[in-house]
Amino acid sequence: MEAKIKNIDCKLFKVALPEVMNDAKHGDHTHFELVTTTITLDDGTHGTGYTYTGGKGGHAIKAMVEHDLAPALIGRIGSDIDGIYDFMEWHIHYVGRGGIASFAISTIDIALWDIKCKRAGKPLWKMAGGAGNTCKAYCGGIDLQFPIEKLLKNMQGYLDRGFNAVKIKIGRENLEEDLERIKAVREFIGPDITFMVDANYSMTVEKAIKAIEGFKQYNIHWFEEPIIPDNYFGYAEIVESTGFPLAMGENLHTIHEFEYAMEQSELSFIQPDASNCGGVTGWLKAARLADKYDIPACSHGMQELHVSLVSAQPNSGWLEVHSFPIDEYTTRPLVVENYRAVAPNVPGIGVEFDWKKLGPYKQN
Amino acid sequence: MEAKIKNIDCKLFKVALPEVMNDAKHGDHTHFELVTTTITLDDGTHGTGYTYTGGKGGHAIKAMVEHDLAPALIGRIGSDIDGIYDFMEWHIHYVGRGGIASFAISTIDIALWDIKCKRAGKPLWKMAGGAGNTCKAYCGGIDLQFPIEKLLKNMQGYLDRGFNAVKIKIGRENLEEDLERIKAVREFIGPDITFMVDANYSMTVEKAIKAIEGFKQYNIHWFEEPIIPDNYFGYAEIVESTGFPLAMGENLHTIHEFEYAMEQSELSFIQPDASNCGGVTGWLKAARLADKYDIPACSHGMQELHVSLVSAQPNSGWLEVHSFPIDEYTTRPLVVENYRAVAPNVPGIGVEFDWKKLGPYKQN
Ligand SMILES: [Mg+2]
Ligand SMILES: [Mg+2]
Repeated sequence: MEAKIKNIDCKLFKVALPEVMNDAKHGDHTHFELVTTTITLDDGTHGTGYTYTGGKGGHAIKAMVEHDLAPALIGRIGSDIDGIYDFMEWHIHYVGRGGIASFAISTIDIALWDIKCKRAGKPLWKMAGGAGNTCKAYCGGIDLQFPIEKLLKNMQGYLDRGFNAVKIKIGRENLEEDLERIKAVREFIGPDITFMVDANYSMTVEKAIKAIEGFKQYNIHWFEEPIIPDNYFGYAEIVESTGFPLAMGENLHTIHEFEYAMEQSELSFIQPDASNCGGVTGWLKAARLADKYDIPACSHGMQELHVSLVSAQPNSGWLEVHSFPIDEYTTRPLVVENYRAVAPNVPGIGVEFDWKKLGPYKQN
Repeated sequence: MEAKIKNIDCKLFKVALPEVMNDAKHGDHTHFELVTTTITLDDGTHGTGYTYTGGKGGHAIKAMVEHDLAPALIGRIGSDIDGIYDFMEWHIHYVGRGGIASFAISTIDIALWDIKCKRAGKPLWKMAGGAGNTCKAYCGGIDLQFPIEKLLKNMQGYLDRGFNAVKIKIGRENLEEDLERIKAVREFIGPDITFMVDANYSMTVEKAIKAIEGFKQYNIHWFEEPIIPDNYFGYAEIVESTGFPLAMGENLHTIHEFEYAMEQSELSFIQPDASNCGGVTGWLKAARLADKYDIPACSHGMQELHVSLVSAQPNSGWLEVHSFPIDEYTTRPLVVENYRAVAPNVPGIGVEFDWKKLGPYKQN
């Protein structure tokens, strides 16, 4: 039971997207980057973790894993996940506390959880809370520049795939355009489909309040990242002015940032991403903190992993089914039944990459 | 005047320290990393910027410059520093907002300032405020594990080099040890030498308050980073309980983090580091913000550059003369006259590396 870390193998893939995707603040997405980390213990057990980006930072993440983390982790007891998490945070603290370090720590932490679950012979949803193995799920588009006809066709695709909840990007140059798109989508999907919007922090507090006045008649479930993630008190200003439910979290990387958000932002939903907030360990810290504030734990990105984490929480929120199709490069793309996402039930994190399919995208 | 960026050349050096240095939170330092970035415009003008670390993160910084920033900057107008700064912040925002990205942006921004000053034929102190060309300076040791005799010998070295202000590390296992060291140093240097202490955020609020009760009799000029940088309100708690002057800033990477510190922490001194808060542009933003709060702008690390920035401010504070001797690898090690550090007076940032001396430390 005291097996030690023997090897850490980190790989970077730059995977082409099926089409160019665009939001209000990140510009055009043509690829996503996937950084996988396979850890082998000296008893032969092994696990694979990963993180991803919108196309920038992958080389830096891999460099940090290979040069700063891996050499310091060889020989450590693989089952000491909390100890290793704490060690990593302090080891790279001066260049860390967010940014690339959070992604690098995440890919390692997830690999250690994969090993932990495999050794216990249990699926992640049981090891990470166990409250359930299914959760609510919605499809989120990166569709800000899609013409309305294409936007609606996209919505139809989500409904065809078995979802009853959708999210679109907003934050076009003129608010009128946003409102026109929101109106068109609501009319298209009908009154019973849950509908969220996401501005990718492109607005000011004032503009966000104006936007809410314009779209609240369309029964919007939440407004995601209206303003920059750094302006915690600004979120509260919007809530106090409008009473509208806000969501954020994909850009929070440390437990301290989640604490600021919980204390200062009056959020209705929190959306941590295990790929950039410290892996399973970091995600669970954020989810447990949210529970204290009676806030549902949702997720951002990599649905094939988050389905297990979100399902397992007593304060289970909504799983985002992101437009980066990482799950299509695994042996088990996301399963949806009765409008709910279903967590894998095999020992481990339940995410096995299709290395052959990923092969052509490997970077050196 | 519209010369465009033609080439960006990034180099990483891992430079051995003359002896092992230790503080309360970063463990043993055996090397520092130096990441230099030389930018050449298409009219042949060029400049060199840099950043440094305590030994971890250098490869990731270089990877980010080479893979994410440089390709996106080629062809941009080199004199558009504000535009490029803004572009870089958004370009790597998803993996940025602190951490490695801040160091990568810094090394590029400083290179652009070097070009800007050279083209104007002016030294940095004139281009970055112009209030003066000298500033107060103190020597800071990374000396937590030095036996007292060696600690005092170190102090004598600082005084011999022409300084009248010193700083030591605290945060040993027992507060009594810290107090014993503080007492010994104050008795050794006498009452007229300015004396600061730095805990590298190793204490809790409670322990910091207790420490202050113990050392306030020794006329300590400031207490630096008593607690983690993330706990902005905790700093204010300490100030409210003790009235003691606190300093921080070396771990703040974005203007938002400086805003939190200014608004929430009741600091007496701010210590931004141009190598990790966005270069000259980021440092000046922090210094200007501090001026609004009547807080002196000090610095952390790389004294050979900061001497120009600190000297140039109307709210000029203390220059830290750090124990990483980057200036010894330049053609002009820091100059001290009448206890004050003197800014270089040549066009550019005034930091020219001795590439021959650095050569043996180059990493691939
Ligand atoms: Mg989003
Ligand atoms: Mg310090």
